[in-house]
Amino acid sequence: MRLAVLAHDQFPSGAKTAQGLLRYGDYDVVAVIDRATAGDRVNDHLSDVQDAPIVGSIEAVPETDALVVGIAPIGGAFDETWRSDIAGALARGSDVWSGLHYYLGDDEEFARLAAEHDCQIWDVRRPPEDLAVSEGVARDVDATVVLTVGTDCSIGKMTTTMKLVENARERGLDVGFVPTGQTGVMLEGDGVVVDRVVSDFAAGAVEQMLLERDHHDYLFVEGQGSIVHPAYSGVTCSILHGSMPDALVLCHETGRDAVHGYESFSLPPVSEIAGLYESLGGALSPCSVVGGALNTAALQSADANEAVAAFENTIGAPATDPVRFGVDPLLEAIENGGPQ
Amino acid sequence: MRLAVLAHDQFPSGAKTAQGLLRYGDYDVVAVIDRATAGDRVNDHLSDVQDAPIVGSIEAVPETDALVVGIAPIGGAFDETWRSDIAGALARGSDVWSGLHYYLGDDEEFARLAAEHDCQIWDVRRPPEDLAVSEGVARDVDATVVLTVGTDCSIGKMTTTMKLVENARERGLDVGFVPTGQTGVMLEGDGVVVDRVVSDFAAGAVEQMLLERDHHDYLFVEGQGSIVHPAYSGVTCSILHGSMPDALVLCHETGRDAVHGYESFSLPPVSEIAGLYESLGGALSPCSVVGGALNTAALQSADANEAVAAFENTIGAPATDPVRFGVDPLLEAIENGGPQ
Repeated sequence: MRLAVLAHDQFPSGAKTAQGLLRYGDYDVVAVIDRATAGDRVNDHLSDVQDAPIVGSIEAVPETDALVVGIAPIGGAFDETWRSDIAGALARGSDVWSGLHYYLGDDEEFARLAAEHDCQIWDVRRPPEDLAVSEGVARDVDATVVLTVGTDCSIGKMTTTMKLVENARERGLDVGFVPTGQTGVMLEGDGVVVDRVVSDFAAGAVEQMLLERDHHDYLFVEGQGSIVHPAYSGVTCSILHGSMPDALVLCHETGRDAVHGYESFSLPPVSEIAGLYESLGGALSPCSVVGGALNTAALQSADANEAVAAFENTIGAPATDPVRFGVDPLLEAIENGGPQ
Repeated sequence: MRLAVLAHDQFPSGAKTAQGLLRYGDYDVVAVIDRATAGDRVNDHLSDVQDAPIVGSIEAVPETDALVVGIAPIGGAFDETWRSDIAGALARGSDVWSGLHYYLGDDEEFARLAAEHDCQIWDVRRPPEDLAVSEGVARDVDATVVLTVGTDCSIGKMTTTMKLVENARERGLDVGFVPTGQTGVMLEGDGVVVDRVVSDFAAGAVEQMLLERDHHDYLFVEGQGSIVHPAYSGVTCSILHGSMPDALVLCHETGRDAVHGYESFSLPPVSEIAGLYESLGGALSPCSVVGGALNTAALQSADANEAVAAFENTIGAPATDPVRFGVDPLLEAIENGGPQ
């Protein structure tokens, strides 16, 4: 499947969804649309992902199956300067995927164009209609369920999950991916953005995704937020109890000592947060932190090694920086030390 | 304000909202509508609440300001046999309040009648449009914030909260009530049913209600669900972190040893659940279980005393059965032992 990715003025650092699709997607990205860097190539900015031309507008994009809005601005608002690109894609008969809070499918012009040109608008954040309350059966799935959890938001849970999935598959393991955020859902091509689900149904939405994927031996569930986050802990708790994981991988970033965006909230000690996840999850189904993922991007190499060792000590389990050192220690812990 | 309360075939035991309004409301209930018990009086069935005639249909109701749907069937569906009563109320110019999942305001006939007769349909579960992510400021409110939490659903959190509010006011304390469920919102005449809020905004909705009521010395927050509930723990967590309470009152029922409706889930020991609430809440803001509310309805009097004493021992704080023995021990614990 061929994608074009819209990332005006934000590529690469402000375009997390674009980065995720370029790095982890099974899709063929035929172009990135960014008026600010048009004329460059993706690899001029990001070296470790698939390459593609960067163009200024939809008119310069080669044939494509879908245009993806690859930016997630704060608040998820729609930027009117993107309208011509999105309308242009639909007019060409290309689908459009969007993770914005503003549903493109409810936009009169886009809806009309999609109907006229027989193509689809996929508003990734729009919850399905048929969600239900959790039945409490996630603990009964046969697969070994691994959930990434974090000490905070934006701390590497998606990256860790995607690397676990990718590397486990390279090892020949039969792995399913349970996405819970917009980029994850786009990568999987299917799934529910849990933070947009009515609270009563959030755990049920996660449970349902597990049941649909229970033919795999392993299920890696993308975590969200943090259990000690002032705003998002409810989402985190719903994912923890909706998935009833066998194993947790705790994600943290060196130097992070307060909640991002809520700096008056100091983070509790990491060992306490790990204990909280284990006791909260364990109240419904046995689970333990079997590994840790530490983002050491801010450190020099030698210091990174030391930081990972200290993190292992703190959580009492093997750890790594998934980007710097890979995820082998985590996969070994999951394969050998895991329950089942 | 005069209310009529619809409770067909369910009064009194299946009509929790009706009971709540009769028992705790500041409203004048002019009639209960129940075809099954029509001709009786409310006090024939419930002795400790305001009395009212029970009638068979809206036609037999004296003048009223609002008709309240006082039943909360599983799933929150609409029963077509109620249509004539609701349409009849609107045609008389009476408002209609409903806590159903099915929004009466979206029903074509009801919407038309409300417009024609210049009256309002209040769908209590419909979240307001202007909800936002929590800012993490609930811990800064001046009021002493008390949250009822539970070992399970349907264990007495609303009853305990209403009795605390009522008795604290009798003591001359300046108390605000923060409702989080449909009956609570109807009693308060305002508020957000938290389990219907998009997960991302659930804590923010609670925080907003606290900020609006911060002119009181005490705020009593109605809890929902349980932190060890397979389906609803996310709602519970959002209320805990959205309200950042100073004090928790833990509600439990004698003999409850599994999650209601999820009987394969044994409840963890009560002391563990209490500790979990304290550590999860305390991760963001200091909080402790200052009292316990034990539902002893299933026991004889002598046994009830013993059970309450044992419960006090388990949680390490004063306890009572609010219905049987009142809430004085809890109010004393909150007034004397509370923080601030």
